[in-house]
Amino acid sequence: MEIGIVGLGRMGAGMARRLARAGAHVICHDRSEAAQKALAGEANVDCAENLAALCARLAGERVIVIMLPAGAPVEDAVRELLPLCSSGDTLVDAGNSYYRDSMRRAMALSQQGLRYIDAGVSGGVHGLEHGYCLMLGGTPRSIEIFEPFARILAADPERGWLHCGPSGAGHYAKMIHNGIEYGMMQALAEGFALLAAKPELDIDTGRLAQTWRHGSVVRSWLLDLCASILEENEELAGVAPVIDDSGSGRWTALESIELGVPAPVITTALMARFSSQGRSDRARKLIAMMRQRFGGHAVHKTP
Amino acid sequence: MEIGIVGLGRMGAGMARRLARAGAHVICHDRSEAAQKALAGEANVDCAENLAALCARLAGERVIVIMLPAGAPVEDAVRELLPLCSSGDTLVDAGNSYYRDSMRRAMALSQQGLRYIDAGVSGGVHGLEHGYCLMLGGTPRSIEIFEPFARILAADPERGWLHCGPSGAGHYAKMIHNGIEYGMMQALAEGFALLAAKPELDIDTGRLAQTWRHGSVVRSWLLDLCASILEENEELAGVAPVIDDSGSGRWTALESIELGVPAPVITTALMARFSSQGRSDRARKLIAMMRQRFGGHAVHKTP
Repeated sequence: MEIGIVGLGRMGAGMARRLARAGAHVICHDRSEAAQKALAGEANVDCAENLAALCARLAGERVIVIMLPAGAPVEDAVRELLPLCSSGDTLVDAGNSYYRDSMRRAMALSQQGLRYIDAGVSGGVHGLEHGYCLMLGGTPRSIEIFEPFARILAADPERGWLHCGPSGAGHYAKMIHNGIEYGMMQALAEGFALLAAKPELDIDTGRLAQTWRHGSVVRSWLLDLCASILEENEELAGVAPVIDDSGSGRWTALESIELGVPAPVITTALMARFSSQGRSDRARKLIAMMRQRFGGHAVHKTP
Repeated sequence: MEIGIVGLGRMGAGMARRLARAGAHVICHDRSEAAQKALAGEANVDCAENLAALCARLAGERVIVIMLPAGAPVEDAVRELLPLCSSGDTLVDAGNSYYRDSMRRAMALSQQGLRYIDAGVSGGVHGLEHGYCLMLGGTPRSIEIFEPFARILAADPERGWLHCGPSGAGHYAKMIHNGIEYGMMQALAEGFALLAAKPELDIDTGRLAQTWRHGSVVRSWLLDLCASILEENEELAGVAPVIDDSGSGRWTALESIELGVPAPVITTALMARFSSQGRSDRARKLIAMMRQRFGGHAVHKTP
């Protein structure tokens, strides 16, 4: 079993290690030398200096996983790999690409005799140890080729991965998964904020979160994370109240609008992230000024 | 070990059985004869024909759990129990009472020498088998008295229950728990609606939910429930799109407003429930009429 991995960030490196530890031979590459060095010397792992070298070291019908940020990085990698690949090779985009890009890429590559799998991969940094959840889109034959690797990567070899449907279905499922994640995180965070705002009841939010892990309706992996976060640092000292967003939330909200299927909570969670990034500030300033003009209300001044 | 239980609905009956199966002697009462009959004859369970009989059968310092709907049913039960109880007895309100009512009741009862515990209990119908999650508010001595029962009821004898703080803290924690539950449910449901609205990708939402249970970030008990619901009835045939609400969501939203701590997702989930109950209909009709008046847009007619 031999597989190429392009992109050795947190997820890519974890997947490379999980495959290598299970006995697969992994040829990997990352533009960052530091990322490559972190894996160098591990059993069953070889680093290639560039994509041409990576392709050259893979024999027979290649399977190459691309684990890069959505957008230009994936587009560039696919474009660079295209002339290096041969008919029958399989490219697996394991990042969070927009499902419509994946449908387009699968179509374009199939015209060149290449297979393309859009693979939504969830599990974060714990995936290395506990396995990932894989949502795969592509032809049945492509999935059959990738299945041995999916079984290793998955948290459960039978049930931890799914052939969701044709090209795009894997990344669509992952997009929705991430949209749900936005909403669940926001709900949990709002709840803990309301608990912390009631000091007279003296509730230890870390211990409460730990208690909720046993038998409550809100028990979940995200609650497990809240419990350990709040037990270690209940005041969340040192953490700036800014949450990045990286595509999936926006796409889910767009999908809601295009399909005309309401997603008020997921969209609100996305908007809350935008606000946390300071993107409500202009509107807030204008509202403050309007209140001043019509009612003489004081305006807070910038320091 | 002896305990009284007032109210044998789904939760009360489950708690009575879990205590009785663990060897506690349970004296229980419900206004409904059918509810009493369902438990009659089970080992360690005795049914009392009324609250006076229930109190008469409990020896020494009594512990009586009230498991009734919030509001008048709890108020009436406490009022009826008051003259039947003696100094040192402990009443445990295990329902979803508003935490301010619980603070008031604890204060009133303490003036009569009675102990009062506000107990938030989560776990639903699965609690009988797997145990409940208990959030307790009250004095340290009251909690000490109830602890042996809490250890039996809890999903984990050590970590499945928590003395959250003084009177009110248990029901405050449960209210927030339920608010989070509103948000998590809405996020999951929106996600599955967006999946179902994309038939061309042919995603089996039941199987996808099962897959997400293994290694994904959204894994949770609510997702487990979605998986079994969607596998059994993916079209949700026969289910009307109406969701009741029973207090906790409203109180959480009120708390957000009173504390000035934003809870946009929990509040939106609550509003979505109101809409499902037809409570947006008047506003919708007026909007339809305004569009007709200014733009000549067609109005859908009632059948």
